[in-house]
Amino acid sequence: MSAGAAKSPLIAMRGAGYYSSNTAGAKSVIDSAADLALEAIAGLDLPAGPGPFSIADFGAADGGTSLDLMRRVVGALRERAADLPITLTYTDLPGNDFSALFGMLQAEGGLGRAPGVFAFASGTTFYRQIVPDGTLHFGFSATAMHWLSRSPGLIADHTHAVGASPAETEAYRTQSLADWETILLARARELASGGVLVMANFSVDDDGHYLGWTGGVNMHDSFAAHWRALAADGTLRAEEYRAAAFQQYYKTRDEFAAPFADPQSPVRRAGLTLERIFSRVTPCPYRADFERHGDAQAFARAYVPTLRSWSESTFFSALDTGRPIEERRAIIDRFYGACEDAVAADPAGHAMDYVHCFMVIRKA
Amino acid sequence: MSAGAAKSPLIAMRGAGYYSSNTAGAKSVIDSAADLALEAIAGLDLPAGPGPFSIADFGAADGGTSLDLMRRVVGALRERAADLPITLTYTDLPGNDFSALFGMLQAEGGLGRAPGVFAFASGTTFYRQIVPDGTLHFGFSATAMHWLSRSPGLIADHTHAVGASPAETEAYRTQSLADWETILLARARELASGGVLVMANFSVDDDGHYLGWTGGVNMHDSFAAHWRALAADGTLRAEEYRAAAFQQYYKTRDEFAAPFADPQSPVRRAGLTLERIFSRVTPCPYRADFERHGDAQAFARAYVPTLRSWSESTFFSALDTGRPIEERRAIIDRFYGACEDAVAADPAGHAMDYVHCFMVIRKA
Ligand SMILES: C[S@@+](CC[C@H](N)C(=O)[O-])C[C@H]1O[C@@H](n2cnc3c(N)ncnc32)[C@H](O)[C@@H]1O
Ligand SMILES: C[S@@+](CC[C@H](N)C(=O)[O-])C[C@H]1O[C@@H](n2cnc3c(N)ncnc32)[C@H](O)[C@@H]1O
Repeated sequence: MSAGAAKSPLIAMRGAGYYSSNTAGAKSVIDSAADLALEAIAGLDLPAGPGPFSIADFGAADGGTSLDLMRRVVGALRERAADLPITLTYTDLPGNDFSALFGMLQAEGGLGRAPGVFAFASGTTFYRQIVPDGTLHFGFSATAMHWLSRSPGLIADHTHAVGASPAETEAYRTQSLADWETILLARARELASGGVLVMANFSVDDDGHYLGWTGGVNMHDSFAAHWRALAADGTLRAEEYRAAAFQQYYKTRDEFAAPFADPQSPVRRAGLTLERIFSRVTPCPYRADFERHGDAQAFARAYVPTLRSWSESTFFSALDTGRPIEERRAIIDRFYGACEDAVAADPAGHAMDYVHCFMVIRKA
Repeated sequence: MSAGAAKSPLIAMRGAGYYSSNTAGAKSVIDSAADLALEAIAGLDLPAGPGPFSIADFGAADGGTSLDLMRRVVGALRERAADLPITLTYTDLPGNDFSALFGMLQAEGGLGRAPGVFAFASGTTFYRQIVPDGTLHFGFSATAMHWLSRSPGLIADHTHAVGASPAETEAYRTQSLADWETILLARARELASGGVLVMANFSVDDDGHYLGWTGGVNMHDSFAAHWRALAADGTLRAEEYRAAAFQQYYKTRDEFAAPFADPQSPVRRAGLTLERIFSRVTPCPYRADFERHGDAQAFARAYVPTLRSWSESTFFSALDTGRPIEERRAIIDRFYGACEDAVAADPAGHAMDYVHCFMVIRKA
């Protein structure tokens, strides 16, 4: 499975707004980066010529989760320059639901209709250069760059690199470090002098915590266990069982910082410096709701769909395409049904806390 | 019905590639504008600064029909400047299938992957400014600007302005002329000095001919007759019968040229001049196929779907939403079934010849 195939037809069918209404957590991660972003932009000279101030959101999905941040950024720029033309470029993979994005931006009162704001989409992967040389002033990206550019291979007895064997982990790590350099070098070409990148990427923090593992039930181990159960009861064929592996890797803070350490590194020579880097855990909003209401059934019914929104394509595409589509859908429904039942039966410790590495990177 | 609603869910469902594979004719119209475009660009100074050369296709749909033209334009620019960054912005309404567009552009060998080419989409209506002031070098648009920005009202006993009463026609004409000025003034703001627009828009020519009426069977009268038959046999309710009216108007060459006549007009004062304008009929490719093979059934089966691809949303959205969706689909299937049967039974004179007004417009 390639990142380009990450949106299965099933995911695509869920359509407009499904992602952002199910991802209150992703939005609070982005909101928590707003001050960082506004500060970084405050230190930036506005373009001298008549050209626009250019903003990009890399891996933006439907743009719903970053909308408030973008409104604040645009508002701050407007205060400094009433007539500054501003371009907003939302990037994602070609299969993304760009109609949901444009529908939101172009609605009455939408950010795409604000005076002097010009909104665009790009379906160019962030592993390639997306805007012309030296034209980007503020780049943003949240929770997208854990997706690798290609699969580093199978994971024999788990569904994520966090549970892989040492040799498997090394293959994922190597790919992830190469991908990270590719991403940074592409952004270095895009950035104007003085331009800034603010990113919040999934990460393993100093406590060894990562998405869905902050001391309670390990979400990725749960996925793997439920998937294994479907193999054990004969539902999954052996190849299907093995084929499910998230094409993802969560880097540590040191791994994120590595390309900036040596002044002679390709990334430093391309003009990028790391201004800030830190980890932050954002608590699972569904778990927080549960703490208030205490209804385990309701928690499971709200919580598991948000996991499903980003994980389904990985499990679905592991299934043999020789099976009729209805059969494949039924297996996936059964899988998430089992996840939901387990949470409802014993909700203790279930939570998808987010663990991010936040970075501010500037182009000389 | 608004232009924004022009893509019904039914149309959207047809998905990737449906439009361009069914519109060989639209492609040959665009191909026939290539020399005009290349000539217009040849007389254009390339941007002096490091900024990109910016191309836009207004109302591009999935970009399939203009791909060859765009390849030639990019190729011609490349010959003049090996390293010139080029942006390609495809615009359409928010509901357009942008994934089909990006899928094509980003495929192996796709134009979006050509060195120094940066592809974007915009979901901003061409009735508003889409790119920042003075940044557009070459704007193109084919077969899109007959869609009006709002409905000028009902048409009592026909389904298109070409068959409307004089008072109805006047309402459509007035809206169309206002819309045309809006389009031109938005483009005037976008265009760089020396920048050029090449357009091919549906038109009524000096013989009074227009899309689907070049002396044989009148396509729009056929639509109206089949729709009327569904009202007569009780299938359609009275309001449904009345509600079907294409939100379109075909301007004459004089109507297209009018805003350029007076040096004091808003369009002229905005810096636009009309360099060339002429009409051209592009023969219906399905008719041409039929002349070769002579199979009336095959002709009807190939021809009617191409009409359906752009007309279905108008008829579909005239139906009462109180009817179950399946019932509405069945009515529309019946309607096009009747169109197809009529063509198969007596193919003589059926053809959707295109009648376009071609224009080259330059910004001072
Ligand atoms: C979890 S969503 C994050 C969406 C949004 N940024 C947020 O934080 O709420 C990850 C997004 O990254 C996109 N993505 C994954 N790989 C990508 C790539 N190579 N280039 C661009 N986008 C990519 C996915 O399609 C998906 O929309
Ligand atoms: C007949 S298709 C033409 C597509 C392509 N240019 C060609 O010639 O093959 C007309 C296109 O114009 C688009 N369109 C209609 N009104 C529009 C508007 N106000 N702004 C942008 N696009 C519009 C429609 O959505 C549709 O994709």
